[in-house]
Amino acid sequence: MPSGTAYPYDAEGTACIGYLALPDGEGPFPGILVSPAFGGLSDMDRATCDRLAAEGYVALGVDYYSDGRHSTDRAQAAEWMAELQGNRPLLAVRMQAALRTLREVPQTGARIGAMGYCFGGKSVLDLARSGAQFDAGVTLHGVYDAPPEGSQKMTPALLICDGWDDSLCPPEAKVALAAELTAHCDDWQMLAFGHTGHAFTNPKAAVGNGFGYSASADRRSWRALTGFFDEVLRPEG
Amino acid sequence: MPSGTAYPYDAEGTACIGYLALPDGEGPFPGILVSPAFGGLSDMDRATCDRLAAEGYVALGVDYYSDGRHSTDRAQAAEWMAELQGNRPLLAVRMQAALRTLREVPQTGARIGAMGYCFGGKSVLDLARSGAQFDAGVTLHGVYDAPPEGSQKMTPALLICDGWDDSLCPPEAKVALAAELTAHCDDWQMLAFGHTGHAFTNPKAAVGNGFGYSASADRRSWRALTGFFDEVLRPEG
Repeated sequence: MPSGTAYPYDAEGTACIGYLALPDGEGPFPGILVSPAFGGLSDMDRATCDRLAAEGYVALGVDYYSDGRHSTDRAQAAEWMAELQGNRPLLAVRMQAALRTLREVPQTGARIGAMGYCFGGKSVLDLARSGAQFDAGVTLHGVYDAPPEGSQKMTPALLICDGWDDSLCPPEAKVALAAELTAHCDDWQMLAFGHTGHAFTNPKAAVGNGFGYSASADRRSWRALTGFFDEVLRPEG
Repeated sequence: MPSGTAYPYDAEGTACIGYLALPDGEGPFPGILVSPAFGGLSDMDRATCDRLAAEGYVALGVDYYSDGRHSTDRAQAAEWMAELQGNRPLLAVRMQAALRTLREVPQTGARIGAMGYCFGGKSVLDLARSGAQFDAGVTLHGVYDAPPEGSQKMTPALLICDGWDDSLCPPEAKVALAAELTAHCDDWQMLAFGHTGHAFTNPKAAVGNGFGYSASADRRSWRALTGFFDEVLRPEG
């Protein structure tokens, strides 16, 4: 079983501490960014990186807050998130730095994906909106509001996975994102799970008010995600 | 390679001519109904049955028009479709007869799925709406208007696949179906493909005006469908 290590990197002069998991072997392997929910990079994200490494991907856990900040205190995490939510270009800069870092890992091959949960889903969208070059992006119970700066042409193929009952992305938000993607992204898909709320991948998320863990949506979204990355990042089969 | 045969059956006194494809071996195998687009049962549907049989399913192509009627003449097919569209209970009866027929095939096991294209997608929904017992349903560029008779509790898990630009199911129709499923079906998913119109599985469908073949959506929907049927119809793995 592969396991990763803390991985410091620079974001335009700001020190970030990611997490790097490598497959066995010399590579090159396709790379995948794993962008965390609003608490910052957690053991759950590290486990996702390990799981992707076991599937043959170089996986870099993203530290978009910098300094390796992580909190299980919702008020603290919300404060950190508000700073980036209020400065979307900075969020894009932090994501671009992670993308560059992943590309420079010696084992990383030409093709790159990115996936993110909740605010990390937004960070993947914002990376695409910034015009950054990568191949495939997945959001899992992401948040969709477009930045005031608008969007560049998006280069990656995108797969959007969410719960139909997610109170952070009601049907109007899904329809609005679809319109944005139709205008800016040549290849996108949306997969919505009925009777499913926000944070459905998180076993600790209590069910109610448009939130909550769903074992079936967690499993099905992982199957969709791995199938999609396999298709786009390993097209030679 | 398995191949099937014409398979006559009775729908409450009306003679229907389906198509039955069997896997190699004695079974039991899960069964799948294949309900055609509005032209009626075609060689494309028979090929789908053969493909499902190769994957280990007993597949029955449905003759919802009866008498084995099929036409490539759109006006003729539209006339036949209008008759069933105006008599949704009859559509349900025809689908229930096909379901019963599939169950009675000696090689068919306990679990049953149903899939359908276009008006055949509606027929799968109407079978579920009628309260019929089966396990999994998939619609591919289906049509969603609920019957005036309303809906019973739906027993199958449902996967709805469509194109975001499908002129026969615009965003409002998708949102309305999601509301209906939320009320009547305990397990449902929707997968929408961007830049994709109606009839995306049909290589003969010209692209434009919310219609058209899409090789990527065709391939991706097949992957989603086979993964879903495998999960629900062969839960033992």
